[in-house]
Amino acid sequence: PAKLKSRRQRSWGVRASEMSKNTLNPIRAIVDGMKLTPNPDKPMISLSIGDPTVFGNMPTDDKVLQAMKEAIDSQKYNGYAPSVGYQKSREAVANFYSRPGAPLEAKDVILTSGCSQAIELCINVLCNPGDNILVPCPGFSLYKTLAVSLGVQVKLYNLLPEKSWEVDLQHLESLIDSRTACLIVTNPSNPCGSVYSKEHLQNIISVASKHCIPILADEIYGDMVFPDCSFHPMAPLSSDVPILSCGGLAKRWLVPGWRMGWILIHDRNNVFGSEIREGLVKLSQRILGACTIVQGALESIFNNTPHEFYQSTVSFIKANSEICYSALSTVPGLTPVMPSGAMYLMVGIDMDNFPEFQNDVDFTERLVTEQSVFCLPATAFEYPDFFRVVVTVPEDMMMEACARIREFCARHYRPCSTDSNEIDQ
Amino acid sequence: PAKLKSRRQRSWGVRASEMSKNTLNPIRAIVDGMKLTPNPDKPMISLSIGDPTVFGNMPTDDKVLQAMKEAIDSQKYNGYAPSVGYQKSREAVANFYSRPGAPLEAKDVILTSGCSQAIELCINVLCNPGDNILVPCPGFSLYKTLAVSLGVQVKLYNLLPEKSWEVDLQHLESLIDSRTACLIVTNPSNPCGSVYSKEHLQNIISVASKHCIPILADEIYGDMVFPDCSFHPMAPLSSDVPILSCGGLAKRWLVPGWRMGWILIHDRNNVFGSEIREGLVKLSQRILGACTIVQGALESIFNNTPHEFYQSTVSFIKANSEICYSALSTVPGLTPVMPSGAMYLMVGIDMDNFPEFQNDVDFTERLVTEQSVFCLPATAFEYPDFFRVVVTVPEDMMMEACARIREFCARHYRPCSTDSNEIDQ
Ligand SMILES: Cc1ncc(COP(=O)(O)O)c(C=O)c1O
Ligand SMILES: Cc1ncc(COP(=O)(O)O)c(C=O)c1O
Repeated sequence: PAKLKSRRQRSWGVRASEMSKNTLNPIRAIVDGMKLTPNPDKPMISLSIGDPTVFGNMPTDDKVLQAMKEAIDSQKYNGYAPSVGYQKSREAVANFYSRPGAPLEAKDVILTSGCSQAIELCINVLCNPGDNILVPCPGFSLYKTLAVSLGVQVKLYNLLPEKSWEVDLQHLESLIDSRTACLIVTNPSNPCGSVYSKEHLQNIISVASKHCIPILADEIYGDMVFPDCSFHPMAPLSSDVPILSCGGLAKRWLVPGWRMGWILIHDRNNVFGSEIREGLVKLSQRILGACTIVQGALESIFNNTPHEFYQSTVSFIKANSEICYSALSTVPGLTPVMPSGAMYLMVGIDMDNFPEFQNDVDFTERLVTEQSVFCLPATAFEYPDFFRVVVTVPEDMMMEACARIREFCARHYRPCSTDSNEIDQ
Repeated sequence: PAKLKSRRQRSWGVRASEMSKNTLNPIRAIVDGMKLTPNPDKPMISLSIGDPTVFGNMPTDDKVLQAMKEAIDSQKYNGYAPSVGYQKSREAVANFYSRPGAPLEAKDVILTSGCSQAIELCINVLCNPGDNILVPCPGFSLYKTLAVSLGVQVKLYNLLPEKSWEVDLQHLESLIDSRTACLIVTNPSNPCGSVYSKEHLQNIISVASKHCIPILADEIYGDMVFPDCSFHPMAPLSSDVPILSCGGLAKRWLVPGWRMGWILIHDRNNVFGSEIREGLVKLSQRILGACTIVQGALESIFNNTPHEFYQSTVSFIKANSEICYSALSTVPGLTPVMPSGAMYLMVGIDMDNFPEFQNDVDFTERLVTEQSVFCLPATAFEYPDFFRVVVTVPEDMMMEACARIREFCARHYRPCSTDSNEIDQ
């Protein structure tokens, strides 16, 4: 049939946008590139996924489920909520997180679809293409994924494993330039499990203050710290630096699938003016935020979750961390770093002692092949020659996994020629 | 204190990003600019919000609530789902929406946080800055909100009220150029309540086919059509044009707050190749999608919601539409257009007959002041001199509202001088 010439002068062939192509997920990129074929003689133990629910040993509290069912039965939470969340739910979050030096009201809270959307909104409101953000290394990969897709550059600041993953403040400061739009601090940390002291947080804030950089405090693991340690939210420690604290139900309440997150806006000196608040509200209207049933349950979740639930979660994580740390710290060639919170433990690999393996990806791939244990290579966090262990698995699996890692290392360990040299010197 | 000069050479003052400033919500912009002071002697009747749950007269079905509570009790749906949704839930959607000419498998389904996120992902994957999309006028404002914030231009194609809001195909075709990335079709329509015939949809598809433009079919009101009318999903009607159909639980199941949406990828000729599918998967990893509890309930919601529930919803909406249509069609100066589905009815205002008012915004503002009835001025849909009535309110309120609109119009109506002229000619 005589077809009119298309004005568009083109045939089929639809290309994906630049933005979608620039949405890179390093964890997927690395894991998908690995040959993960477990040893058929050993059942697989996966210590790679930051989801505390996968093994069934860490259920959420009954009160949390109860709160959800009551929200459903009330039939009050089926309609649209305001894009920033129900007023009452925002109030509940404000009450729960208000601190003497850093009071919060409902207007300071924006409810989001998971902490991920909280982070997305914060980056989106603070950054223009060409700006840069300061991101911890090693650090959670989502920051970079979101930033790069927006044309925002990521500058990685070093954390120091020998100082329990404190920030290398000098390095941090050296990265700041006129296009630095935001400093991201993850405390407690994924992947490190580190928890910063008040003093260290103050030092970080001082750098931000000196250079007038707002802080995005990713506190999704807030309060998930071991009993002998304290969690300090950043906001009360800041006198002038505005802080957007991102959090959610995912980790502490052990329900990451529910996609309930929030932004707490701390800006006592009104540095943000109304612009940033309004910008966040506008951005929240794009797709709206969290499921209304979970929003409806929030107040009751905060009020009724028993203290023992929180305690038993961290006690368990601490016990498992200790098992893992003490088991691996006696393995030649490995250097685990003891965490103080969250649910991760980082282990350094002395690659010189494992000449068979090129890098951490190689090492962890072979650990699957031989021992059916999968740990995420820390290259996924831009931190080669480490791997991350998720410490929420059942205790016996944790022990078994460590035994297998020990066996694996013993088999592949080669003393370095330089080792003796060092003694000589 | 002697403060070091900041390298950034700047003091505090954090500006919101261009993207947040370019995220414009016309409904909010217009409504926030209106003086909405009801008449204290008359209780307010709001016919403005597209949320069927606000009056409590349209609860969702008990089976839907039951499915949610079972999902909670199972404790199987607390962890992270894959970013595109659980395999089983995607399968449930695929089964429910598969049609003879347009089969679906789980891999063709992406679950999202509401239909809004479905639309966002589709626009994000298809469009680069500088591209344009074709959007119905009048139409749902979110398309423009999302596009403009991405630097994507919106070209409005006309719908014809006198032809039950069919697309002006010539106008549509005239807008296509080499940067046209996507054609959005809303069927059934918000704000029109129109439902297109098979033939009309085929004509629209022909235009897209001729110019090789993929279609985003916003079918969130799919199946919400009056008993004497049929809904035709676009996909089975297309032989070559790839169609991304966006939908969700919001409207048909009357639970918009739950934020459960989906994209159905129809691409039988493999025009998209793997790029668009991969792009959608990548974009889904940014913030992850829908709440896992709702995902877990999906299969049971599809299987167990009784047919009568769907029927009674549309019967009610049809009855209310008829009440509204017949009441307003005898009001001098108004021209309501009878809908065939969704939950809206558009009413034309013969502005010449209301010289006191400048436009539809003025008109609807005064309708609040005098009669405590609020209808959304269609300027919010880029379509001045109309207003939109939401027809999900209880019947007695619908009747009362129409009586007040009649009274309001009678009071302000002025016969046009040209009316007699017309008769003369
Ligand atoms: C540091 C950090 N921030 C944010 C998130 C995302 O949280 P959510 O699942 O609530 O989006 C995670 C998840 O692992 C995380 O580790
Ligand atoms: C045409 C249309 N598409 C999409 C949506 C958004 O649906 P959801 O609430 O599931 O995001 C709406 C909501 O009113 C709508 O009218």
